[in-house]
Amino acid sequence: MSAPYPAETATPPGHRVTLGADRPMRLDSGAELGPFQVAYQTYGRLNADRSNAILICHALTGDHYVLDRHPVTGKSGWWEMLVGPGKPVDTDRYFVICSNVIGGCMGSTGPKETDPATGKPYGLGFPVITIGDMVRAQKLLVGHLGIEQLFCVIGGSMGGMQVLQWAVAYPESVFTAVPIATAARHSAQNIAFHEVGRQAIMADPDWAGGNYLLEGTRPHRGLAVARMAAHITYLSEPALHRKFGRNLQNRETVTYGFDADFQVESYLRHQGITFVERFDANSYLYITRAMDYFDLAADYGGGTLSNAFRKDGKGTPVRFCLASFSSDWLFPTSESRAIVHALNAVAANVSFVEIRTDKGHDSFLLDEPEFHQVIRGFLEGCAEHRGLTRTSGP
Amino acid sequence: MSAPYPAETATPPGHRVTLGADRPMRLDSGAELGPFQVAYQTYGRLNADRSNAILICHALTGDHYVLDRHPVTGKSGWWEMLVGPGKPVDTDRYFVICSNVIGGCMGSTGPKETDPATGKPYGLGFPVITIGDMVRAQKLLVGHLGIEQLFCVIGGSMGGMQVLQWAVAYPESVFTAVPIATAARHSAQNIAFHEVGRQAIMADPDWAGGNYLLEGTRPHRGLAVARMAAHITYLSEPALHRKFGRNLQNRETVTYGFDADFQVESYLRHQGITFVERFDANSYLYITRAMDYFDLAADYGGGTLSNAFRKDGKGTPVRFCLASFSSDWLFPTSESRAIVHALNAVAANVSFVEIRTDKGHDSFLLDEPEFHQVIRGFLEGCAEHRGLTRTSGP
Repeated sequence: MSAPYPAETATPPGHRVTLGADRPMRLDSGAELGPFQVAYQTYGRLNADRSNAILICHALTGDHYVLDRHPVTGKSGWWEMLVGPGKPVDTDRYFVICSNVIGGCMGSTGPKETDPATGKPYGLGFPVITIGDMVRAQKLLVGHLGIEQLFCVIGGSMGGMQVLQWAVAYPESVFTAVPIATAARHSAQNIAFHEVGRQAIMADPDWAGGNYLLEGTRPHRGLAVARMAAHITYLSEPALHRKFGRNLQNRETVTYGFDADFQVESYLRHQGITFVERFDANSYLYITRAMDYFDLAADYGGGTLSNAFRKDGKGTPVRFCLASFSSDWLFPTSESRAIVHALNAVAANVSFVEIRTDKGHDSFLLDEPEFHQVIRGFLEGCAEHRGLTRTSGP
Repeated sequence: MSAPYPAETATPPGHRVTLGADRPMRLDSGAELGPFQVAYQTYGRLNADRSNAILICHALTGDHYVLDRHPVTGKSGWWEMLVGPGKPVDTDRYFVICSNVIGGCMGSTGPKETDPATGKPYGLGFPVITIGDMVRAQKLLVGHLGIEQLFCVIGGSMGGMQVLQWAVAYPESVFTAVPIATAARHSAQNIAFHEVGRQAIMADPDWAGGNYLLEGTRPHRGLAVARMAAHITYLSEPALHRKFGRNLQNRETVTYGFDADFQVESYLRHQGITFVERFDANSYLYITRAMDYFDLAADYGGGTLSNAFRKDGKGTPVRFCLASFSSDWLFPTSESRAIVHALNAVAANVSFVEIRTDKGHDSFLLDEPEFHQVIRGFLEGCAEHRGLTRTSGP
């Protein structure tokens, strides 16, 4: 734990904009937020008619450092597999934007930032936010950048929820939507795993009722346990078996003790220990809660998902491409298929592929050539349709 | 949390025997244990030729109160669905034995009991035990009861591991073996979930390095989190969806807070809170560790499971009946099938059924008529083969 805790990090690199200064943003809860900060990164160049922008939405513990070295961990960008010059999301061609979600801890306003009203960290005084609120803030950011319609909104897991939210809340502002390894609502099992994580954090006395920044403590143990539990859900059993099986940790035989005997144990412990260096425990509470609350059918379709994709009696104009991974048990293919069926019911333009892989939910972050080929092909087709030529630009 | 903590419970009802008094029992770790206590219950009557005994092996957090009211929770016996007069495991016909595993906390010697050498609770001074050690203690108990060969050893989950261990370590002492919803080795994912639980306990400052009984604290929060995480794995996603879905807890709308908004959250919290009333945190560490270490192929077969079922060049004489449950993702059908294949390879007498159900791993404890019918039919057939008539008895 040598790296500084996010709360102590100097202002992270990248852009930052203050939004909601003139008029606070009204949240789904009814509370108001403003002024607030949104931290973001951009890659590539916006073309003259501002038609080549792609918004990337990050997952639960992600951030806006898609292609940059992470300021705390020093690791390379989290989606360099998919995004960059010549990559499927080609930064030579598209103007790529990614912002840290509100409620997050990498520069956008969240529970660890200072509440201007009190001069102290928000802590649990931060309003509970939703996926809708995250997207509302992104919409303000995109407006601030002078973009009326995004060429594409793309993201995996919670990022995929934001993509769906964009398509439903602002269909006229999205040309294509690419929700990956996601669902239109968080399942009971998903909520259950999140609740375990929250309880682990709140059980840590160093959480101090959410006031740990003021108290000078950090709920590192609780947050590490939360991360360990969640991390299991990001991998498949076959992948864990292939990677670790029952292999022992640097030993010929078991130790008959409670040290990490098995490689999978030390791997998990490492995941927990490194996570607390870069993530804020209260942000973890807020963002998991936002995911739990997500339910497009209930919020926009009167309980029927296809209704959420209907507006003024017509189906959505957004072109969709969905991808799921066969071994993903957190957001299984059946969840993507339910979205496809709802889109089909409104005669939407939708393509869908289930990628065969044993790597589980995390596949969207990994080297999956077929997945990358699908994204490349879809975007190229849509770019042609949208009249984005390779030579376009300012 | 009105009920007394197990450590404070008066001696629980039932039988108790002191074993290893003349000669301590040598454990797989090389350590020796003795004298030690084994708490057990019996139901029905042993017949004249001592051939109608069935040993029931309990699961991780189970105990020997198969048909009795639990002394702490007051709940009825945990296997009343399957065991009792006229039930598939018919106590009018069979002499049923169930003992609390060593390392446990319901009367058998475990970390919360007093170490005779120090006069203080064992705590982490208790030796790490294995499934083999649990069964070794059961073998001593069965010998103490004057039984040379058990008609049947039966159990689910960790109980099934003990059944397999009995069949491999003492094949001449087992006429039939019924391992249910189990595996011949703990998988990487299983170990990972157990490690999360252990870390949750050890992260609780009230665990006090394992010395909480001396310190007068109890790691209730950590143990509750461990139980919550484990409990998710005992249920299937479809069962959670059917039972709870996204139903809210006594509310029309979400609260935009961190109280239990969803029914699945309050259910899980309840599972955690009630568990700590009846279970010892250190026992949880020891028993999960025993399960992690379980690997029949490695320990008895030189890495090949079928070899474990071979003795003196011949296949096992034990008659097997295996059952798995289609929605069990903790001990999936593939694990049972691997055992069946190994038994087939040594031309053993084995029957196997996968029960279709959406109830997940816990199905073996629930009302599953087809499962119960399979057990009844198998035991009746074997009883006939063994020459156990309905009128036999002392």
